[in-house]
Amino acid sequence: MSFSPLINELIDALRCLPGVGPKSAQRMAMHLLERDRKGASRLSVVLQDAVEGVGRCEQCRTLCETPTCSICSNSARLRNQICVVETPSDVMAIEQAGGYRGLYFVLMGHLSPIDGIGPAEIGLDQLTRRLDEESFEEVILATNPTVEGEATAHYIANQVQRRGIQVSRIAHGVPLGGELEFVDGGTLAHAFRGRTLVGN
Amino acid sequence: MSFSPLINELIDALRCLPGVGPKSAQRMAMHLLERDRKGASRLSVVLQDAVEGVGRCEQCRTLCETPTCSICSNSARLRNQICVVETPSDVMAIEQAGGYRGLYFVLMGHLSPIDGIGPAEIGLDQLTRRLDEESFEEVILATNPTVEGEATAHYIANQVQRRGIQVSRIAHGVPLGGELEFVDGGTLAHAFRGRTLVGN
Repeated sequence: MSFSPLINELIDALRCLPGVGPKSAQRMAMHLLERDRKGASRLSVVLQDAVEGVGRCEQCRTLCETPTCSICSNSARLRNQICVVETPSDVMAIEQAGGYRGLYFVLMGHLSPIDGIGPAEIGLDQLTRRLDEESFEEVILATNPTVEGEATAHYIANQVQRRGIQVSRIAHGVPLGGELEFVDGGTLAHAFRGRTLVGN
Repeated sequence: MSFSPLINELIDALRCLPGVGPKSAQRMAMHLLERDRKGASRLSVVLQDAVEGVGRCEQCRTLCETPTCSICSNSARLRNQICVVETPSDVMAIEQAGGYRGLYFVLMGHLSPIDGIGPAEIGLDQLTRRLDEESFEEVILATNPTVEGEATAHYIANQVQRRGIQVSRIAHGVPLGGELEFVDGGTLAHAFRGRTLVGN
């Protein structure tokens, strides 16, 4: 026993969304059909528009619908710093934090040989080409502090240093407002190793 | 600072889904655009198909794309029992539990005068017409055990009794497999009031 074919298909299609299991998909389908058909129609249109219209920035590889994204084409950004991140969401997080005025390079992932993701898949050939052709003074590595993110950062650091360009890694440690008691041991150990002298 | 216009629009459109806030919507949009464009296209098509194709069963008001739903048009169902529920999901839950062989009537909500939902909005004129025209022997009230659900059940019970038709309410009490310790006081009190003699 199940819903009518179209409703079943909708429940099934909604499961392509991350974190949506059979129960949530059913709840979403019922909500849309019972109470928000206008929202469902709009979602349908916007989904198709985005799938067709959104591509990659030619310079930094982030998702955008223009050839070059708004940051790469902004003449006010500093052209001597480039920050390497894993995803477009990371760019947003750094932009929202404020303070950074340079460019970005979005890997759209991290090195993961087991999944067949090597340097070419995360655009490192494009990054090294830019390092050779443009005049960067610093590459800031802001990949995630996971095993894969660290490995990716390490790999890129080698490539950058070989070209005589300064390379840095964002600091990892106890988050602001965090309580030591609740910070995991790995982070705490990292924070100790990375301690800086006070009053310097 | 934000994503490009199309991506922002997608994040916004995804928020029509129940339980999806700004962070989940962003995660969903990124997932679809980075990793599952095929799924996104399919969701777009199915959404529009469902919005256009899914209507209401003429007899029981449930959501379906045919004039009469598969239960109402099934000649094997008993035509002397009708079970009143709030939503199509309730029909599915009862069908999956098995055992009930009669018909359904789906209110698509419950009485809620504050929100302007009166008897007509939940199809009670249609239900009473069917009670007058068809030959039901029992109406089973399976609205939710909430204040509104109880009020709705009470209202319908009056209408049914006036027609000399038997009316019943599904049992409420401690769920099977539940531990008394973790059952709320209201349910426990209800279970005590509704106790049945053993060995009868």
